[in-house]
Amino acid sequence: MNQKLAMVAFGGNALLRAGQKGTYEEQLENVERTCGQLRHLIERGYDLVIGHGNGPQVGNVMLQHEAGRQQFGLPAMPMDFCGAETQGSIAYMIETGLEKVLRSAGIDRHVVSVVTRVEVAADDPMFRNPTKFVGPYYPEAPKDGAVYKEDPRGLGWRKVVASPKPVKISNIDIVEQLAREGHVVITVGGGGIPVVATPEGHRGVEAVIDKDLASALAAVTMKADEFYILTDVPKVYINYRKDNQQALGLMRVAEAKQYLAEGQFAEGSMAPKVRAGIAFVEAGGRECIITEAAALDDPTCGTRIIA
Amino acid sequence: MNQKLAMVAFGGNALLRAGQKGTYEEQLENVERTCGQLRHLIERGYDLVIGHGNGPQVGNVMLQHEAGRQQFGLPAMPMDFCGAETQGSIAYMIETGLEKVLRSAGIDRHVVSVVTRVEVAADDPMFRNPTKFVGPYYPEAPKDGAVYKEDPRGLGWRKVVASPKPVKISNIDIVEQLAREGHVVITVGGGGIPVVATPEGHRGVEAVIDKDLASALAAVTMKADEFYILTDVPKVYINYRKDNQQALGLMRVAEAKQYLAEGQFAEGSMAPKVRAGIAFVEAGGRECIITEAAALDDPTCGTRIIA
Repeated sequence: MNQKLAMVAFGGNALLRAGQKGTYEEQLENVERTCGQLRHLIERGYDLVIGHGNGPQVGNVMLQHEAGRQQFGLPAMPMDFCGAETQGSIAYMIETGLEKVLRSAGIDRHVVSVVTRVEVAADDPMFRNPTKFVGPYYPEAPKDGAVYKEDPRGLGWRKVVASPKPVKISNIDIVEQLAREGHVVITVGGGGIPVVATPEGHRGVEAVIDKDLASALAAVTMKADEFYILTDVPKVYINYRKDNQQALGLMRVAEAKQYLAEGQFAEGSMAPKVRAGIAFVEAGGRECIITEAAALDDPTCGTRIIA
Repeated sequence: MNQKLAMVAFGGNALLRAGQKGTYEEQLENVERTCGQLRHLIERGYDLVIGHGNGPQVGNVMLQHEAGRQQFGLPAMPMDFCGAETQGSIAYMIETGLEKVLRSAGIDRHVVSVVTRVEVAADDPMFRNPTKFVGPYYPEAPKDGAVYKEDPRGLGWRKVVASPKPVKISNIDIVEQLAREGHVVITVGGGGIPVVATPEGHRGVEAVIDKDLASALAAVTMKADEFYILTDVPKVYINYRKDNQQALGLMRVAEAKQYLAEGQFAEGSMAPKVRAGIAFVEAGGRECIITEAAALDDPTCGTRIIA
């Protein structure tokens, strides 16, 4: 109960890798590998909450809905619904994979997954200019109330949704309670099911919440001691892939902001992770560690963002 | 904490009704109606755990996977994965709907959904003779390792899966704890994600677990005081739809078994509900109530099965 609490976020591509078709067997194999790497954090005595992305998975679900609409006349569902579907399937795979790893390590802990809505502001400025392309390509923009834009490469029309800021996580107090009781808890899958508050309650919206920002908010709300953001490189770099590339071991918030302002970190890739780390530390978190899952066996791994 | 605990099971068709296409708006409307009816149990002071079916929903997901396979080359996933998807989406809708109802009634309780695997025995005799037709029709049986049988009406070949007995529910202790803390908990969606135990851990299987039996097992394990099985008729009948039809107010287990032996209850409809009620009462449960959601405002509603 007095253990340190760590929040860990990893991408949907840790489970469904680029170039793979994403068969059942492939996804199970990927998830077991990632879970095996998370084991080090558990063995180090952390209470643990896991957030995960769903990019490749929700992309597939949206294609399946569109194909089902065309072939069988089934309604294609909006993104909140599709995201909820991926929370179920991804949580199931992580639970099963992580339990195997814990069992083989002789660690007796439950893994439990909570379906998680994340509130965004209905007047978030991102809704006025949605920019995130999602789902299938259409020869013409469907007239279904959603916003479509023409793909810049001329591949057709595609739905665009906003990526609003996460404001509040449903049931995060329950997630924290279960984690501090020693259970490993899976939450904010895909950044959470996006909803807005109305006088009557929640209403789902078409949006994608950045999973690192949602996980940062979870970490802040639970007063997690550490926040791990897992990616596919061992550290954060400045001058990335240039002759003077430099790996960072430690990065103070002021430095991180300076590097962001200089454009050192790619948007859609390292920049949102660094922002999520800053958000955590500025809200009082001790440190955010950005690294790759394979490095977790080393307690000094990755790039640490501190105040 | 000392309140009575009720387990409530309702069908997937409470959310996606026969004859509807199952649009987002239709499903939300259905779920809010059903949640409005569950409110009576909460107002009566019960701690509450909700189990639900997923028949129409998982049917749609399987069609979407098949259409996605044909149109986009995406892998069609097995039933455990598809069931997990529906746990996410249905839980999301019930959570959102139930919260609205609680808020309008001025009741301050959380609604929380737990992704739930349910263990079945690998040597369950049902696996030797799978009989439940699921998913799309094919002109020829696909060679993908699953079992296909020809539809008796000549509509094509269709996957058949077993309906094994639920043996153990993952994390049911956490579900019970949360419910007894006053949260409304959603679990065993679609009867649970079917898995079998192996020396390494769980392995998913293609199967459909009866949601009433899974809910009965949940109710037994949690030592629920009452077990409600919601259906589309107010009571259980003998001589159903005959001139001498008779509604039952109370049914002792011995009577229920007698009626089952006489074939009074239709398989795939009332018979599994009565069996689930018997299972609950024989394991020490006080009473099982089979009724329709609309009758829940009357504390004496339905057919009660007692020892």
